[in-house]
Amino acid sequence: MVSVPRSRMLPSGKPRPRYDQESVLAVAAEVFTERGYDGTSMEHLSRASGLSKSSIYHHVEGKEQLLRLALERALDPLLASLDADDVTTGRAVDRLQHLVRRDVEILADRLPYVTLLLRVHGNTKTERWALDQRRRFDRAVARLVQEAIDEGDVRSDVDARTTAHLMFGIVNSIIEWYRPGRDSSPAALADQITSMVLDGIRT
Amino acid sequence: MVSVPRSRMLPSGKPRPRYDQESVLAVAAEVFTERGYDGTSMEHLSRASGLSKSSIYHHVEGKEQLLRLALERALDPLLASLDADDVTTGRAVDRLQHLVRRDVEILADRLPYVTLLLRVHGNTKTERWALDQRRRFDRAVARLVQEAIDEGDVRSDVDARTTAHLMFGIVNSIIEWYRPGRDSSPAALADQITSMVLDGIRT
Repeated sequence: MVSVPRSRMLPSGKPRPRYDQESVLAVAAEVFTERGYDGTSMEHLSRASGLSKSSIYHHVEGKEQLLRLALERALDPLLASLDADDVTTGRAVDRLQHLVRRDVEILADRLPYVTLLLRVHGNTKTERWALDQRRRFDRAVARLVQEAIDEGDVRSDVDARTTAHLMFGIVNSIIEWYRPGRDSSPAALADQITSMVLDGIRT
Repeated sequence: MVSVPRSRMLPSGKPRPRYDQESVLAVAAEVFTERGYDGTSMEHLSRASGLSKSSIYHHVEGKEQLLRLALERALDPLLASLDADDVTTGRAVDRLQHLVRRDVEILADRLPYVTLLLRVHGNTKTERWALDQRRRFDRAVARLVQEAIDEGDVRSDVDARTTAHLMFGIVNSIIEWYRPGRDSSPAALADQITSMVLDGIRT
């Protein structure tokens, strides 16, 4: 028998089917967004996923862990995008451009998870953690905009914080209207948004 | 005795205090946004407003009428903005500019009601009516963008529908971060957004 780490085994000793956690997470993200986290019970998740509650508990400890895992699907790549090579070296305006492009692609790729992230309230520890991470991200973008203003590449008639909010207002609007398949490809969307945002903020 | 229309009189015969309907509406918009319309009961509205349920019923027939009245606070001025003189005559790009400016001011002025409008699902007749009105608005903006493209003033490398979504992505982002008093005045905000949006879409 091939050795499988304990956490990847079911109580029966069979390997845990990993695709199930992914599909439970995808369903959970949509149900949390639709009903609100507070308004969602394990019963709702069971009905929406077609899995019994005990099957869901094989994969996660409970509702709050599901929320955390779903939010990480959005936050992990977004926070990692701040540390990418082309976002950490070069002129600030170019770093901003790379950041916008990456983030448009992340949003298009992880639509249900980013939608959940942008709809989170702050009633539980996990939700407050997610809001903290969002604020960390927003502050990093505002610092980058400020550097680009200081380097003379971004207009200085709007303060850096407002510019950062407006730039990501465009990026985040994707969750409201973008439907993969119906609209432009993620790469074309990234081109359109990046050039529109950058033209709007350059000096 | 001065004649007062029946609908503005309480069962006691006294004139209905109109400020109460306004304050019930303001509370209802916030509670509907916070809890979701489905998750809100008259009991929640009573607790949040400090009015008894029977006091609330003096002013409105029920929860769905409250939702409709609250949504009209956002939709009436937004739809009216499409018919303003400076939005219906002149070059399309200038009409777009006037429309963005007006709508930023409406959003800043009616923040809780527009937030509710942008969060509405589609579970009830009133919500579906609101979504229809939003689509009517979106289509009118997309037509205006198309005219501006045809007149050569707006870039043609992005289709009109996507440009309209992205423009109003910026405008609608106001509900996520704008706090009157803390941030720029509505007029300054309108200046900033209008010039950023227009610089981003002009040829």
